[in-house]
Amino acid sequence: MAKVADKYLKVDPWAVIEEGFDPQRNRTSESIFSVGNEYMGVRGYAEEGYSGDSLLGSYFSGLHEQQEIGIHYKGMIRSLRYMVNAVDWLHTRLMVDGEQLDLARSKITDYSRRLDFRTGTYRRELIWLLDSGKRLRLTFIRLVSMTHAHLGLQQVRFEPLNFSGDVEICTGLDFGIIHEERGQSMWRSLRSGVEGNVSAIMASTLNTGNKLFSGFVLHSSQELHTEKVERDRYIGQAFKLQLTQGGMASYTKLAVHCIDIDASRKEDELWREGLRLAAGASELNEAEIFTAQSAYWTEIWETSDILIEGDPENQQGIRFCIFQLYQTYHGEHPGYNIGAKGLTGEAYRGLAFWDTESYCLPFYIFNNPKAAKSLLEFRYKTLPEAMDRAREVDCEGACYPIATINGTESCDLWQHSNLQLHVGTAVSYGIWHYVKNTSDRGFLYSKGAEMLIQISRFYATRGQWGQRSGEYGYFGVMGPDEFQLMVNNNCYINLMAKKLFEFTLETIAEMETLVPDAYTALLKKTGLIPEELADWGNKAGHMRIPHDQVTGVYEEHDGYFDMPHIDIHSIPVTDFPLYSNWSYDRLYRYDMIKQPDVLMFMFLYSGEFSREAKLANYEYYEPRCIHESSLSPSIHSILATEIGKYEEAFHFFEFATRLDLDNYNRNTREGLHTTSIAAAWMNIVYGFGGMRSDGEYLSFRPTLPKRWTSYHFRVKYAGVLLGIEVDRNHICFTALRGGRANIMVYGQQIIVDATGTKLPLGGGMMT
Amino acid sequence: MAKVADKYLKVDPWAVIEEGFDPQRNRTSESIFSVGNEYMGVRGYAEEGYSGDSLLGSYFSGLHEQQEIGIHYKGMIRSLRYMVNAVDWLHTRLMVDGEQLDLARSKITDYSRRLDFRTGTYRRELIWLLDSGKRLRLTFIRLVSMTHAHLGLQQVRFEPLNFSGDVEICTGLDFGIIHEERGQSMWRSLRSGVEGNVSAIMASTLNTGNKLFSGFVLHSSQELHTEKVERDRYIGQAFKLQLTQGGMASYTKLAVHCIDIDASRKEDELWREGLRLAAGASELNEAEIFTAQSAYWTEIWETSDILIEGDPENQQGIRFCIFQLYQTYHGEHPGYNIGAKGLTGEAYRGLAFWDTESYCLPFYIFNNPKAAKSLLEFRYKTLPEAMDRAREVDCEGACYPIATINGTESCDLWQHSNLQLHVGTAVSYGIWHYVKNTSDRGFLYSKGAEMLIQISRFYATRGQWGQRSGEYGYFGVMGPDEFQLMVNNNCYINLMAKKLFEFTLETIAEMETLVPDAYTALLKKTGLIPEELADWGNKAGHMRIPHDQVTGVYEEHDGYFDMPHIDIHSIPVTDFPLYSNWSYDRLYRYDMIKQPDVLMFMFLYSGEFSREAKLANYEYYEPRCIHESSLSPSIHSILATEIGKYEEAFHFFEFATRLDLDNYNRNTREGLHTTSIAAAWMNIVYGFGGMRSDGEYLSFRPTLPKRWTSYHFRVKYAGVLLGIEVDRNHICFTALRGGRANIMVYGQQIIVDATGTKLPLGGGMMT
Repeated sequence: MAKVADKYLKVDPWAVIEEGFDPQRNRTSESIFSVGNEYMGVRGYAEEGYSGDSLLGSYFSGLHEQQEIGIHYKGMIRSLRYMVNAVDWLHTRLMVDGEQLDLARSKITDYSRRLDFRTGTYRRELIWLLDSGKRLRLTFIRLVSMTHAHLGLQQVRFEPLNFSGDVEICTGLDFGIIHEERGQSMWRSLRSGVEGNVSAIMASTLNTGNKLFSGFVLHSSQELHTEKVERDRYIGQAFKLQLTQGGMASYTKLAVHCIDIDASRKEDELWREGLRLAAGASELNEAEIFTAQSAYWTEIWETSDILIEGDPENQQGIRFCIFQLYQTYHGEHPGYNIGAKGLTGEAYRGLAFWDTESYCLPFYIFNNPKAAKSLLEFRYKTLPEAMDRAREVDCEGACYPIATINGTESCDLWQHSNLQLHVGTAVSYGIWHYVKNTSDRGFLYSKGAEMLIQISRFYATRGQWGQRSGEYGYFGVMGPDEFQLMVNNNCYINLMAKKLFEFTLETIAEMETLVPDAYTALLKKTGLIPEELADWGNKAGHMRIPHDQVTGVYEEHDGYFDMPHIDIHSIPVTDFPLYSNWSYDRLYRYDMIKQPDVLMFMFLYSGEFSREAKLANYEYYEPRCIHESSLSPSIHSILATEIGKYEEAFHFFEFATRLDLDNYNRNTREGLHTTSIAAAWMNIVYGFGGMRSDGEYLSFRPTLPKRWTSYHFRVKYAGVLLGIEVDRNHICFTALRGGRANIMVYGQQIIVDATGTKLPLGGGMMT
Repeated sequence: MAKVADKYLKVDPWAVIEEGFDPQRNRTSESIFSVGNEYMGVRGYAEEGYSGDSLLGSYFSGLHEQQEIGIHYKGMIRSLRYMVNAVDWLHTRLMVDGEQLDLARSKITDYSRRLDFRTGTYRRELIWLLDSGKRLRLTFIRLVSMTHAHLGLQQVRFEPLNFSGDVEICTGLDFGIIHEERGQSMWRSLRSGVEGNVSAIMASTLNTGNKLFSGFVLHSSQELHTEKVERDRYIGQAFKLQLTQGGMASYTKLAVHCIDIDASRKEDELWREGLRLAAGASELNEAEIFTAQSAYWTEIWETSDILIEGDPENQQGIRFCIFQLYQTYHGEHPGYNIGAKGLTGEAYRGLAFWDTESYCLPFYIFNNPKAAKSLLEFRYKTLPEAMDRAREVDCEGACYPIATINGTESCDLWQHSNLQLHVGTAVSYGIWHYVKNTSDRGFLYSKGAEMLIQISRFYATRGQWGQRSGEYGYFGVMGPDEFQLMVNNNCYINLMAKKLFEFTLETIAEMETLVPDAYTALLKKTGLIPEELADWGNKAGHMRIPHDQVTGVYEEHDGYFDMPHIDIHSIPVTDFPLYSNWSYDRLYRYDMIKQPDVLMFMFLYSGEFSREAKLANYEYYEPRCIHESSLSPSIHSILATEIGKYEEAFHFFEFATRLDLDNYNRNTREGLHTTSIAAAWMNIVYGFGGMRSDGEYLSFRPTLPKRWTSYHFRVKYAGVLLGIEVDRNHICFTALRGGRANIMVYGQQIIVDATGTKLPLGGGMMT
């Protein structure tokens, strides 16, 4: 891992703080200072206009555009969908004495910004030195409300330090916002105007016809004499504030948004709904909004905080991760998924990958089971699209897309969209994992089982029988390790498919016994016949799992062991990232792997593999893995901890929580690694905390990293909020809320209640 | 092979004849009635303008445009080059009484067209029934001169059947011609005007700046009073001809062209050169041009004809193939190559593939060795581009492109351009095959050896050592069989690379002994060092050739034998072509193959494999081959003949000579299968004639297809023109020109001279 921290931001346990303005780092900071509330997200850009390098990004979950693309062959996608850059609802222009504020041109001092994890607000301060010698302190505060999904708040405060006079302000809603990848605005205005105190505009995306209503009202310490500013794709209000030396003036913009993704509402209906919401918002008092926001976050930290003592950087890092995860998704909206960059940038086009189920879902299962369920609901909602996709690739059942925003496949690299099969099994694993740890059999028996059947149908038609081996498996596939582009019998895919079939069969058998009515309804709905069940059982039973009996090492795919060896440490640092510097075909011709594949299933089904098997496979694959995926090191760290390689485990952990804060991959400017930061949470909880959630009971084998004094994390399990404290000598389990829980610790069953159970820290650990 | 003939054209031994006009078949006929002379080619379109479905195509060898394309990853191409549709030099408009001739609208009778193999002319006749009741017989004759490369001739004859009066004519040169794939003309006019009796225009392609001068003069039986017609990208002359009932009037347009592909000439220089050529052409007498053309073709037929008795359809077919091959290429211009569609359509973008060396070169080696050498010169000329390409894909030496018009890689499917390695070895095989049969060691020691060294360098850096096998080979490749998309150790590629290394080493050793000065110069020029030679020897010696010792079957690639089996006869006919009807990934997940791969090298190095080995491999691979490449069946036919499967051999041959005449693939409308029709020649000569040219001597094992009475073919070998006659009882070898030749017949050495050697037709043959 040729990854080096770019230390820049101030370390603080409860905030991200930047002091001074560095134009070179502005885009990176814009990503880091993003605020969001799952419904929408906005990058930390300068709302007053900035003529330097900036990605002015404002996004709404699920709101997307599309582009038709030329198709070479059947099964390749015809339409590329992407999260579209939407209204700049923070749009502001400030002028004093004819001079306009622009950080790229104006003289400023005392610049700082702060994103506060406890109040959920982003605050930016600076002193503007005008050509006239006037000095004006400005404070910009923004939040998107966690309690009122449609609401965004912007407050601008003015403190003239050496003068009294006016500031001219224009603030509005701008749909002329440029989608950077396309180089144009993807919006056309449908309607705009002022109704009552609400200035509003409604626009539609050019190709998909997604609609967005945006309206705002202004509050101020002064009476405002506003003048409407209206132009194509823009509505705003211009006014002046009178500033008095030594005093402070301010105004607050409450912006309300309302989206229509599936054309379910007529224009007029959406317009009226937006106005109604905006009118409601105008009744709100700013103080109440700030208080509600803080209260929301207080509750989050009480149930989801990880406290680390002795490591201020990782303390800040893990809280930033948890904060951003909640900002991105917390389950209010079952129709949403989590894009690879969340709502913080255009990269990866806002598309969701298998990351959701494989990396993010555990966080939600153990912090916010409702959100976990909502994520699975996205897959259920998009089952029809997955079934269409299966037809497109000449299969049956449901083929979940490798990259999607609305359920359709949106990956335009056929080698990924047609060969990577690990989304379907990630979904089935997610259902299994969610149900196992929440006991939500209601979900399993309704939506879960239906998805399982359709996913199984896909895997039963995409696979084939080896002519020599006589075993079943998948030919022409790419596993999670994307450095083996097109192989046969990828061990991960085959094993996950076997597990899928088995889980589906178990579920159906269980339903037949326990919920016969639901069982009958399911058979009717899906047309399931006994021959299919027999077929799945047969295929699971004859699934090829390439494995070296002598060494105990699973072969990543047929022929992998003969792949030419490369010493990954011999690759010059300047060659990274290899995708940019190596000929495309060259990436795929070594035993070098990009991210865990065999090790991934050893983590997912941890209980089925002995420590010895993990050791043998870790020692084989770890030296071959270059971790070019940011999802990768945490899985290695978790396994390294389990097999006692503590130094290595901490090394892999090192950048997990601060991947974006220290810009390890040098691409945070494009957006946050939202799904990767979910891995940071897993790294602590599954790694150092030694939690495993694939067995009969939730289990723990905690260890303590050398440089930490102690740490304390919380998980929700079976309705109980468990607190786990680990220090140099002890571990203590407490049921903080919700009664008692039955768990395993170091292989021993214990019952945890509100009084707590204190045990010595297990022997041989990294104390 | 779900291929069915679409019988439509008249059968004639020396011509292609269409009677009646069928708009549905017009594009197909346009392809078939193409005329060309290697320098240029023009489809058989209606020069008078046709508002129906037509591909108005006029092409010049090497003249190309380019389009920049977005690049995903390193090693993928950035610029797509394609043969550009060039000047419509036949452009004509005819009007009588205000009515304009247009076959889509006008009433016509007695329509016919004829492409004559002996005169090299295309003649089209019709009677135009005017609204006024006038009846006018029209004859359009065209040729492109085989003796004056720059010259095209068009003659239009008018015979009024029931009236006397005028016809208004406008004839000119049109650069407004639409490139169909791009939907626009790719030309901008540089200059136009009339100088003396020459009307001329010069234009440049928009992106590449390729230049083309085009000029014409008119001859007529009447004195012409012309009026210049000039507009953007067009120059022409308008005039009237007086028609007298019972008589005939005509005019002839001599068009002269001059291209500049590499910007080697200034505009003014090219303009003057063009005018000079046009002035020269205007001195020519039409009768002389027709006579020279006939004389040229007479000589061709004396040296290259194949006479088949008892099979008029294949007689016509094979002559059509030979005619079109000569029209496409005959070696006057060493800088040219042969596009997959020759100069007859836009499909495959005018690009040349490995077809040139693998399928076309044998025809030229044994008919026109100078042309064979010229083809190899193309590869020498483009060695610098191949060396650049090797760098782009992180290798050394020279990587010849899978598809090219100017030496750069122009295939925009990375899976083909980056994984298919068989062009380099096709070139080295071509050098070997050419030198072996012509003894042109001068070429070998100069250009040949230099190419061999650079090709060897590429194969020595693209290959890798298997970690388990300890053998050398190629990982991440696609062999000739394009239904195995990305595999390791493709048997064909590995074997060809082994042969490449061995031939290179032999050549260098031979040069050190025989031509020490050239050897020293070569070392200096290429920087070759002894370690490289040792490395190549080592790699050749340890080359992995997957092979089943028990069955004797070569494994097409590592793991091929385990590929899921499909009974190719179980695939519904409506699924073909599979590329259009199957999901792209599905094509690659069976033991089904698209075209010979193992069988291909058994053909190329025939002498190294026993009849038993061929039988075992043919019986294994033949049932798995769907022949979705038109190059495929002839190779199977040749091998089937060798192993005595005569019925099957003739079945595979059946469509070879008439692939386009009977439109077997239903896509002749896009252009002729120019390189595939070369395989028809091989099918007769190597198949039924049993010729082999990879041994010490040229050898023959003739057979006679059941339905044939006899056949007679000719090959040039070691300076001698050999005639081989095969009838039901005998075979007769005669040295028609050039002295005596030493050959093998049925394994016996014989010396053939002008008196001929008559032998009984070999036992057990398909008499």
